[in-house]
This record gives sequence, C-alpha cells and structure tokens, in this order.
Amino acid sequence: MTHEIYPSREVIEAAHDRIRPFIHRTPVLTSATLDALSGAKLYFKCENWQKIGAFKARGGLNAVLSLSEQDLKNGITTHSSGNHAQAIAYAARQVGAKAYIVMPDNSPRVKIEAVRQYGADIAFCVNTPEARQEAVDRLVEQTGATFIHPFNDYRVIAGQATAARELIEEVGTSLDVVMAPVGGGGLLSGTALAARYFSPQTTVVAGEPEGAADAVLSFRSGQIERAPYVRTIADGLLTPLGTKTLPIILENVKEILTVSDDEIVAAMRLLWERMKIVVEPSGAVPLAALIKHKERFKDQRIGIILTGGNVDLGKLPF
Amino acid sequence: MTHEIYPSREVIEAAHDRIRPFIHRTPVLTSATLDALSGAKLYFKCENWQKIGAFKARGGLNAVLSLSEQDLKNGITTHSSGNHAQAIAYAARQVGAKAYIVMPDNSPRVKIEAVRQYGADIAFCVNTPEARQEAVDRLVEQTGATFIHPFNDYRVIAGQATAARELIEEVGTSLDVVMAPVGGGGLLSGTALAARYFSPQTTVVAGEPEGAADAVLSFRSGQIERAPYVRTIADGLLTPLGTKTLPIILENVKEILTVSDDEIVAAMRLLWERMKIVVEPSGAVPLAALIKHKERFKDQRIGIILTGGNVDLGKLPF
Repeated sequence: MTHEIYPSREVIEAAHDRIRPFIHRTPVLTSATLDALSGAKLYFKCENWQKIGAFKARGGLNAVLSLSEQDLKNGITTHSSGNHAQAIAYAARQVGAKAYIVMPDNSPRVKIEAVRQYGADIAFCVNTPEARQEAVDRLVEQTGATFIHPFNDYRVIAGQATAARELIEEVGTSLDVVMAPVGGGGLLSGTALAARYFSPQTTVVAGEPEGAADAVLSFRSGQIERAPYVRTIADGLLTPLGTKTLPIILENVKEILTVSDDEIVAAMRLLWERMKIVVEPSGAVPLAALIKHKERFKDQRIGIILTGGNVDLGKLPF
Repeated sequence: MTHEIYPSREVIEAAHDRIRPFIHRTPVLTSATLDALSGAKLYFKCENWQKIGAFKARGGLNAVLSLSEQDLKNGITTHSSGNHAQAIAYAARQVGAKAYIVMPDNSPRVKIEAVRQYGADIAFCVNTPEARQEAVDRLVEQTGATFIHPFNDYRVIAGQATAARELIEEVGTSLDVVMAPVGGGGLLSGTALAARYFSPQTTVVAGEPEGAADAVLSFRSGQIERAPYVRTIADGLLTPLGTKTLPIILENVKEILTVSDDEIVAAMRLLWERMKIVVEPSGAVPLAALIKHKERFKDQRIGIILTGGNVDLGKLPF
C-alpha cells in the first residue's frame, strides 16, 4: 500500500496535475437573483457537473491514480451508499483496475445503477457501519484489493481540495469566504487547506444539517463526536468526522453553521427554480446556512461548492 | 403601431443587435452520456438559462424595443399563461413601460409570481382563447396599450430566430439538423429562418406533443388546423400555428415528429438526471423526438434548443 502524505501545498498541486486529465474543470456560476436575495455576491462552483455528478470524483481519482501497478492488479474496494462508490468505480475504470464496492442495500437506485454502469462489482450489506466494514474486510482478504476510505485518507482529501483551488483560480483571492458542507469532512478539510495555501485571507465556513450535527460538536470539543440523532434529507452528510479530517478542520475552519431540513429544501428549491440546475440536498446546505445568517455575510464575496447533483427524481422533497 | 417587416436576414441581424444588451448569450452544452445514448452528436442551446428562464425573452424584447416612444407611453399588453407573459413584463421593465398581462386564472403559480416580480399589472380571465382576447381588447381600449402577440408577429419571430443564430455561430455550419419544439410556431419559424440564412445546408426538424398535434396536420394540409385533442404535459405548446408562422414553417421546415407524454417525460428525466439541468417539459420534446427516431439521426450533428426551465417544482411528473 502506498504511503499517505499530509496534504501540503505541493501535494495538492501534484494531485491536481494527476487528476486533471480525468475531471471536468467545472464552471463557476453567478446569479443576480440569488445575490439580491442573499445580500452577498455568490460564486457557485458547479461540482454537480463533475464526472460522476459530484466532487467525489476528484478524491477517488487521486487515491486510485496514486496506487502502484502492483496494488492496481488486485483491485480497489470501498464502502459507500453514494457518490464515493461511483467515484471509485469511475476511477478504477480509468486505470483498468477492478473495483469491488460495498453498498448498503437501501442505497438510492440511481446510485446503484451508476456504479454498475462503470463496471464495478457490487456487494450489498445491511446499512450499519459494522456490516459495511466487515464486508470490505472480507473483500480485502479474498482479493487483496486496496481499501480507499471515503474521506479519512490524505489522498482523498488532497483530491477534494482541488475544487476550492479551481474556484480560487477562477474568482481570485478577493473571496471573503468559501463555504462547503461537512459530512465526514473530506471536502471541508480539503477546502480549508486549499484556502490556506492559495488564498490565505479567505475564511472557510461549513454548513451541517441539524439532523447529523456531529461536526459542530466535534469542532467544539476537539474530539470526534457522534450526532445526537441522525435524520436528514442531506444523505451525503451522515457520517462523523475522521481522525485525519478533524485536526485539519479544527485548525483551518472558522465556523460550522447548522441548518434544518426545511432550510435545506428551501435553498435547494432556489437553486433549482432560479438557477435551473439540479443540485442534491447535501449541496444546498451551505447556501441554506448563508441565507439563515445572511446579515453576517452581507456584501461579502462568497464562494460556495455545489457538491453534487445525483438525486433520485422519484423521491424529491418538493 | 410600428410596421411589422418579414424577418429577412438583415431584420434578424438587426433584432439580434437590438436585444443583445438585455439577453444572455446562453451556453451550448454537450453530454457524452446523451451522445452515447442517442447515437448522435448533440449540442444543447441552453435557453433555460435565458433571462426569464426561456427563449421568449428574445422575441418579447425585440417587439418591445421596436416600439416608438409614443407607443411605449401607453404601455404594452399581451395574454399568456406562461413564458411570453414574463418576457413582455421583463421587456417592458427594461424600457420603463407599463405592462398589462392577461393570464388564465389556472396559470402556474411560479409564472404568476414571476410576472408580478417584474412589476406588471395582471388581469386574470378564464382559460379560453375568447376570454383571453376579450380581456386584452378591453385593456387596449382602456389604456391604448400595444398588443404583442405571443408568436404571430414578425418582430417576435425575428427575436426567437436569434437563439438558433447563436447556436450556429457557436457550433458552426457543419450542423446537420437543428431541432426545436412547435406550439404556435414562433420559435420554429424563427429557427427555420436562421438556419436558412446562416447555415443553409442545415435542415430543421420540429418535435410536437401527440396531445397537441395541430402543427403536424397543418404541415400536411397547408392550412391552420386544430389538434384532434389537447392534453399534454408540454404546456408551452398547446396553441395552433398562426397566419405568419405557418407559411415560414411550410417553406423552411423539413419535418414535424410527434411524441407521447411518456416519451417527453423520459427525455426530460434524461436532461435532469444526466445533465443536471432543469428543463421544462416543452423543452424536452425535441430530444424525445430524436430518441424515438434515433436510427434516422445516427452519427449526425444535431443542435437542440432547450427552450426553457420554468417548471412548477410542486407538480413534477417524476
């Protein structure tokens, strides 16, 4: 297994060069309507148009492309109900490696189909952290595949950091704030490092669903905490932070703001109705946080990472 | 009232110059997934991102900007349940004129709100052609406002033609086909003229809902026909052709293909799910027609005008 290196500036730049041929440089959209509505100047980094429909393609690719030929021969495995599963399946296909994906049996239909389309083997399990890990451990034992964690992996974090790097390249270092949602913290820690290296005066603020409010507690206590309860429409943000993401977040993130599911759905509706773009609930969380606290962001220049667009159209909240 | 001039090449170029400061030059998107699925090379002109969320901003603006100062003083009126209402309200606001919009009382909530936001006066009526025209006639009598027909107006047709002109400018004259939906024929006749003037070897093919199949009959008989029945999700395409749109279509359109509502919804789902963009049912009609007849368009370069993105998220067909 390759060595994981802490994502320094150079590590993130190298990750960017490594994945660039396989990703889209997604556009940054603005909206006069949403600017007027929020009182801020907003720059949306459209990772809903990224390969596989989400930023996770970046981290998955960087991890897979970092593996040795010997590692790739035995394949790659991970567990994920969502975008990371697609990211690993997509990345594996790019390098001609086998992907073994453990998915909870209640995963969204559209995500299962997508993983299958990338040619991955899917093993289903019940949706508990223990069952997922057990299924992956079994696959590693049987195949020798390399396990790539969805977020607690420096290679994944370095890959996710490239979204904010592109946003900063595009909009410039005059951004006052970059916002991202937080689940396991892969995107948030990468975003925070990208801001630190490439636009040091830009602060990083996260949005988190009230129904998965572990990161805000961890941010306060300095330890990995569990959410008091888990029930939210933002199904990409359910997991607690990891041992690698928490320290980066503690050091480089200014604040974590929580929002209710009603606020998430209202923000999602704005993105769909006013900007005519399909964004998944998790991707609407930062905008929901900004609107909830708009007096605090008044007249500022805010970059927002729209994380993904993989929604089950049969189960919309409207 | 200003004189309406047949949309020659020069008239369309002048319309384009006239409206350019007030419209978006919308992007042309491609999708490897939809190319693979259709067997053709597709270029989507994203008029769902146009001002007011639909191409109708073009025609409305060209008509309003063509009026004399004296005309503008008395205001502008039209009847529309949808995007033309917003287009006229938006255009009137740009020139500081009053807009009086007659809307059927069962118009989508989101469209009524949008018209109101542009500062227009709304008069509601029952949803019959007679009641609409009567309400407009009354407004013209009371206010002296100029009536701008949603499609049977050369200034409107010249404005709509600019969408296909931009598509041709962007993709080049190597396009084999340009596709647009047909309702009253404003967009289709404009598109057909733009192709004739700016890319003569490109043919124009229309898509029409089976549940509003008047244009396909008119195309056959050479006269304005009524649809055998009107019941379709493509609520922007309900009206018959007009005396000005029919002759242009007869002379310049190759074919009109009909599609069922199931086919429209399936195409709409592809646009939303695969391209992560919000397109209204009417806008999905050409793609539905292309997929239905894909053997006929195999390996061709096809431009498709995605007409608009104004959907009521509370009433989705998924």
